[in-house]
Amino acid sequence: MENNLLDYQESLKHALSQRDEIEKTVKELLKRDIKNVIFAGCGGSLAIMFSCEYIMRQNSSIPAFAYNAGEFNKLCPKLLGKNSLLITASYSGTTPETNEAVQIAKEKGAATIGFTGKADSPLSKNVDYVFLNNAKTGATNANLIMLYEIIFSIMRELDGFEKYDAVMQALDTLPDNLAEVKKLAEEKAENFANEYKDETKFLTIGAGLSWGEAYAYAICILEEMQWLYAQPVHAGEYFHGPFEIVDENANLIILKGEDFGRPLVERVIDFSQKYTKRLVILDTKDYPLPGVDEEMRGYLTPFALSAALDKYSEKLAEIRNHPLSIRRYMGKVPY
Amino acid sequence: MENNLLDYQESLKHALSQRDEIEKTVKELLKRDIKNVIFAGCGGSLAIMFSCEYIMRQNSSIPAFAYNAGEFNKLCPKLLGKNSLLITASYSGTTPETNEAVQIAKEKGAATIGFTGKADSPLSKNVDYVFLNNAKTGATNANLIMLYEIIFSIMRELDGFEKYDAVMQALDTLPDNLAEVKKLAEEKAENFANEYKDETKFLTIGAGLSWGEAYAYAICILEEMQWLYAQPVHAGEYFHGPFEIVDENANLIILKGEDFGRPLVERVIDFSQKYTKRLVILDTKDYPLPGVDEEMRGYLTPFALSAALDKYSEKLAEIRNHPLSIRRYMGKVPY
Repeated sequence: MENNLLDYQESLKHALSQRDEIEKTVKELLKRDIKNVIFAGCGGSLAIMFSCEYIMRQNSSIPAFAYNAGEFNKLCPKLLGKNSLLITASYSGTTPETNEAVQIAKEKGAATIGFTGKADSPLSKNVDYVFLNNAKTGATNANLIMLYEIIFSIMRELDGFEKYDAVMQALDTLPDNLAEVKKLAEEKAENFANEYKDETKFLTIGAGLSWGEAYAYAICILEEMQWLYAQPVHAGEYFHGPFEIVDENANLIILKGEDFGRPLVERVIDFSQKYTKRLVILDTKDYPLPGVDEEMRGYLTPFALSAALDKYSEKLAEIRNHPLSIRRYMGKVPY
Repeated sequence: MENNLLDYQESLKHALSQRDEIEKTVKELLKRDIKNVIFAGCGGSLAIMFSCEYIMRQNSSIPAFAYNAGEFNKLCPKLLGKNSLLITASYSGTTPETNEAVQIAKEKGAATIGFTGKADSPLSKNVDYVFLNNAKTGATNANLIMLYEIIFSIMRELDGFEKYDAVMQALDTLPDNLAEVKKLAEEKAENFANEYKDETKFLTIGAGLSWGEAYAYAICILEEMQWLYAQPVHAGEYFHGPFEIVDENANLIILKGEDFGRPLVERVIDFSQKYTKRLVILDTKDYPLPGVDEEMRGYLTPFALSAALDKYSEKLAEIRNHPLSIRRYMGKVPY
C-alpha cells in the first residue's frame, strides 16, 4: 500500500516534469494554425477528456470535441483536416480504435499527440508527439495532468488565457495533495464499503468537471471491475427521466466538484435526499488542498474526486472479495 | 388506437408543411453570418438533437454542439455570441432550463429558434423564431422532422450539401412509412413484452444515429415511464467497461440503424450473442420504407427506431399494467 502511494506520486511528478516539453510542443504545433482540437479515446481514457472538452468550451474560441475513438473513426468529422489537432490516450498503446483514429487523422493532415504507458507500443510509434506516463497502475491522473498542460498551454497562446501560471501552480501541489486526499478519504471509503457491499445497482451522478468521474466510476470501476450495474447520469438530465426510478432503495453516488457543474449537482442532492437515504456524496470541498488558490480549486475537481474514489474502489473490492483486476472478457476472449 | 395513429400522422404532416417557412427562416438567419450551431434541450428533446449534432459533424464545416440546457446555462460556452444559432425544444414550452438557455443566448446576441407544442408558452414568446408541433402526444418525430429541415437547409446554404432534395423527399414518406413501421413492429413488440415483462434491469445500446434513441428509450421510457433501471450504453464504449456485467441474465436492447454507427452496433451484437440469449435487436433494415432512396435510409434511422419503439413501450406498459403516463415526481412534486 505505502509503495502504491509512492508509485502514484511518482507518476504524477513525472507528468508534471513533462511541462517544458509540452509547452515547447504546443508552440511548435500552433505554427500549423490549429483551428480545432479533437480528443479521441475509449472508456477511462475518454472520460478524462470530457473535462478537457468542458474547459476548452468555456475558455477557448476554438472548438473542442471529445469522441469515443471508434465513433470518431466511423463518423470522420468534416472539420478534421490539416488545421486539426487530435489528442489521444491509451494506457496500453494498443487500443485498436485509438490507433485507427490516429491513422485517419494523419491521412487528413492533422497533427497528432498520444499519451500512453508503453514507449514501444503502436500508439507511441503512430503519433507525431508522444508523452509517456510512467504509472505502474492506473494512469488516469498522470494523463490528466499532461492533458491540462496541453490545453491550458493552447489557451494561453491562442486565447490569452491569463491564469496559466495559477493553474500550473495548482497542478504542482497534486503529488502531495492527492496523497492527502486518499488518506482523508479512507474512513469514508470504509463506511461506504460496509454499507453498500451487498448492493448490485447504482446510479453515479455528476456534471461539469465531475461528469467524467461519474462516467468512469460507473463503467470502468463498478461495471468493469466489480460487475455491478451502474448507470452514469448527468445531473442536468436527472430530472428529465432517471429520477423517476429513485425510491428508498435507490443507491446514488453523487460527485460534487467546485466548478460550474456544482449547482446542477446540488439540485440533485436537494431533491434526492427527500426520497432516499442511500446517498453517497463525495464533495471536493471536504478536502483542504493546501497551497491551491481558491479560484483554481474548480479545475482540480476531477483529480480530487478520482483520488478519493480510488479508496472507495479499493475498500469495496476488498470487502466484496472481488479484486479490481478480475475480468470476465477484457483481455481474455476475442471481441 | 386508430385515432392515435391518425393524430401521429397529422403531426408529422404538420411538421413537413413547415418546410417553406423553415427554408425562409434559415435564409434570413444566415444573413447574420452564423458560425456555430448550438442545440440545447433536456431528456427526450435533447436526445433527438444528438442525431442533428452527428449529421452536422459529418457534413458541415461549422461546428455543432448539443448540450443539456441546464449545463449550457452554467457552462456558457465562449463560442456563444452574435454569430451563434441556438436551437431549443421543449414540448410544454415551460422547461425552465430551456427558457433560461434562450435568455442567455439572446443576451450574447445569438439568434434563437424554438420548437414547442404550445403557442402561448414562455418558449414561444422568448425565441426569435418559433415552430409549433401540433402533436397531441409525444412530439419527438415531428420535432425531428423540423430539426432536419433546419440543419439540412443550413448545410445546403453553407456547405453546398447536394442531397438536400433527396433528404426532403425521404422525409415526405414518413407519415405513411412510420405508420407502416408501427404496424410491422406490432408482433415483435408483443413478443418483447411477453418475454421481458418481469425484468427490472436493461442496457440499451446504440451508436451514431441510433444513439439518441438508445438514450431516450432508457431514460424517458424505461426509467421515466416504467420505473425500470435502464442504462444507455454507447456501442463504442461497450467494450471498455459495460460488457463486463453481461452474463446470461443480462437484457440488452440493441438499436441498429443504417448510418455510420451500424458497424459499431454490429460488433456489440456479434460479441454479446455468445454470452446472453436475452438480446432484443431492432434493425431498421427490417422495415422496407418504400419510396426512400437507398442512400437516404441512414438518415431515417432515428425515425424508424422511434416508431418501432413506440410499439414496444405500448405493449410493455400494457402487460405490466403500468400506464406510460404515470409519474412519481414529474409534474407532481417540486424539484
